[in-house]
Amino acid sequence: MTLTDYVVQKASRAKAAARQLATLSTVVKNKALLAMADALEAREAELLEANKKDLAGARGLSKAAIDRLTLNAKRIKEMAVGLREVAALPDPVGEVTKMWRRPNGLQVGRMRVPIGVIGIIYESRPNVTADAASLCLKSGNAVVLRGGSEAIQSNAAIVKVLSEAGEKLGIPAGAITFIDNPDRQVSALLLKQDKLIDLIIPRGGEDLMQFIIKESTIPVIKHDKGVCHTYVDDKADLAMAEAICFNAKVQRPATCNAMETLLVHQTVAPTFLPPLIKRYQEAGVEIRGCPRTVKLAPGVKPAADSDWGTEFLDLILAVRVVDDMDQAMGHITRYGSQHSEAIVTQDHGRAMRFLNDADAAAVFVNASTRLHDGYQFGLGAEIGISTTRIHARGAMGLEELTSTKFIVLGTGQLRE
Amino acid sequence: MTLTDYVVQKASRAKAAARQLATLSTVVKNKALLAMADALEAREAELLEANKKDLAGARGLSKAAIDRLTLNAKRIKEMAVGLREVAALPDPVGEVTKMWRRPNGLQVGRMRVPIGVIGIIYESRPNVTADAASLCLKSGNAVVLRGGSEAIQSNAAIVKVLSEAGEKLGIPAGAITFIDNPDRQVSALLLKQDKLIDLIIPRGGEDLMQFIIKESTIPVIKHDKGVCHTYVDDKADLAMAEAICFNAKVQRPATCNAMETLLVHQTVAPTFLPPLIKRYQEAGVEIRGCPRTVKLAPGVKPAADSDWGTEFLDLILAVRVVDDMDQAMGHITRYGSQHSEAIVTQDHGRAMRFLNDADAAAVFVNASTRLHDGYQFGLGAEIGISTTRIHARGAMGLEELTSTKFIVLGTGQLRE
Repeated sequence: MTLTDYVVQKASRAKAAARQLATLSTVVKNKALLAMADALEAREAELLEANKKDLAGARGLSKAAIDRLTLNAKRIKEMAVGLREVAALPDPVGEVTKMWRRPNGLQVGRMRVPIGVIGIIYESRPNVTADAASLCLKSGNAVVLRGGSEAIQSNAAIVKVLSEAGEKLGIPAGAITFIDNPDRQVSALLLKQDKLIDLIIPRGGEDLMQFIIKESTIPVIKHDKGVCHTYVDDKADLAMAEAICFNAKVQRPATCNAMETLLVHQTVAPTFLPPLIKRYQEAGVEIRGCPRTVKLAPGVKPAADSDWGTEFLDLILAVRVVDDMDQAMGHITRYGSQHSEAIVTQDHGRAMRFLNDADAAAVFVNASTRLHDGYQFGLGAEIGISTTRIHARGAMGLEELTSTKFIVLGTGQLRE
Repeated sequence: MTLTDYVVQKASRAKAAARQLATLSTVVKNKALLAMADALEAREAELLEANKKDLAGARGLSKAAIDRLTLNAKRIKEMAVGLREVAALPDPVGEVTKMWRRPNGLQVGRMRVPIGVIGIIYESRPNVTADAASLCLKSGNAVVLRGGSEAIQSNAAIVKVLSEAGEKLGIPAGAITFIDNPDRQVSALLLKQDKLIDLIIPRGGEDLMQFIIKESTIPVIKHDKGVCHTYVDDKADLAMAEAICFNAKVQRPATCNAMETLLVHQTVAPTFLPPLIKRYQEAGVEIRGCPRTVKLAPGVKPAADSDWGTEFLDLILAVRVVDDMDQAMGHITRYGSQHSEAIVTQDHGRAMRFLNDADAAAVFVNASTRLHDGYQFGLGAEIGISTTRIHARGAMGLEELTSTKFIVLGTGQLRE
């Protein structure tokens, strides 16, 4: 079998499953998800065995990468809990989001329907396999999973356990399709199957993203970098501002919604920045400041031009003192990545201006950008944070894995 | 200047305009649209002059193509009327579609925002230039227009008139960017500007669509073919069914929402089909039937395998007698293009089954598929009918030219 045949066969199987999944009842889907959760726990030994093989081949990887790759009883339990949570969420499929009547009596509505076949291309972390499979199943989509080669044994084992448990309860074979050939050429071929796959969601680094955008003839919803700013206005509650800024940088710096650049109004900078910078430094944060910031606190490195607009993903923060809100907005427009942007202010007009004018997937007033997350927003789940400007911007939950179709109820209406 | 520089310069200008357009007030946009309408009428002579140049170069084209290309006073007036209608529509930008409160007091909502820069690649018909420009402007998007080379003088003149009228009233230069270089290479380069253009909407034939899907690194919302079916159930009101079937085929056969295949339940076929086929034949429709259809009426050609699933776009209709609803659903799944599908029945259960299970951008009960249209559905306008399964399926109006961002109002909330 050629590689192309292999890919087409896999994608065709997913497409055939998608047709059946689209009309599967919520009861069947939920029972299957619960059985899958039980199966992951019951077959723990099998999963750990497969993971051991991946770890044996992972000697060249960094300590952090090996940690991400490692499965243990706790992590398997967490995957199972995740599946049970997805089972408990409302089914988005079939919801009529709106319905209205036309002058000729025609009733026109929009009904949520699955997208069809979703291809997920991801790196490391075997838990993504279970997360993505459960969210796609609940939303009535078939999924084609293409994980990193370093986790191939673990991912294959997880898919085997999930599929076997699901198929016993009526989930069609192919609903969770796993690409078990690690050849890099396979990804490129997969991205050309626009007749069989309806959407690609990549999760990974810059190189993977560029490869996918270049190769794909299928629509892609990117999960790209976040260069997030917080602007502290002169009308801010400074105690609140300090808490927000500290949280946004330090709580988990390696995430896309962590703050990378802090902008502070010149009027409050001399009182606000010195104690905050001290607190940051005590927490191990390296501060790279504009000339005015450097003068305000000891131990601040002068920022290079390249620091503005950089996603550090680390305990590093760029700090700039700005003349006013206009300059802050200009800075965000120029250097931001339209991911998550925040203002801290007690001034209503400025809060509303920021909310309306800042261009980002999520804009915050008086809150930490770290809150940009499907669970925090109340979506119940999260497949990721989209930086694409169509279909879904920002945190994506189950609803964002659906589309809508028009439903039209007539009594013999014709086109005149 | 190289072709790449030319394309980047054009797209950059549109992107700069998009930033300003996103926050422009509805009043300014509406005043500009009305002034643009007036300008089209006032500068009719200039438009006809440009059109004359296109027509002079169009000698090789078919009569139908020349008709589509031709401007006259009536068509210019229609463009102006279209612009005034768009001015009268509600502005989708800024609408908060939903807002909710989280347990920690955080208020999270979704606000409609423009997509950014929309590239429209289209063939023939200069009126698309004015339609697309007005819909993008109203929804706060900048537009990059790439029309067919045969209409380049007409399109350039229309854009000049619209831009000059708009800029006097505060519309940024570049909001309506026209690609005035007919080199085919320019399209390919345009489709690679994923840092500057956010969405491509192609309008044209199969070749154009394939070229765009292959070349584009920008998300594409396709306006692809419609292989639309009507299934006449044995529980149908046969008089209603006849009116619907006649309308769906004959009212305007060259459109994507016209019926291409008629499926009739075997129980009613002997009474239903002979008079309908006679009526079709009198209207000049060629009937290509399955063996059972051929036996039921004179003058029916046997259908070839390739007739099922063909978009005739003409007075040709494939007709098949089916055993039951299951067979009809199977036929639609196999041959349909997921565009517009209809059932005619008085049976409630079957109507609901069709509504839920038929996979199409629009599904109809007891109505003509020809009604799949932004105006007929009450969207107020239409940029086209999407056959892509994400972002917007089916008729696209102003709302479908927007996206949403999360707006988050806090009182100091942090991530725990």
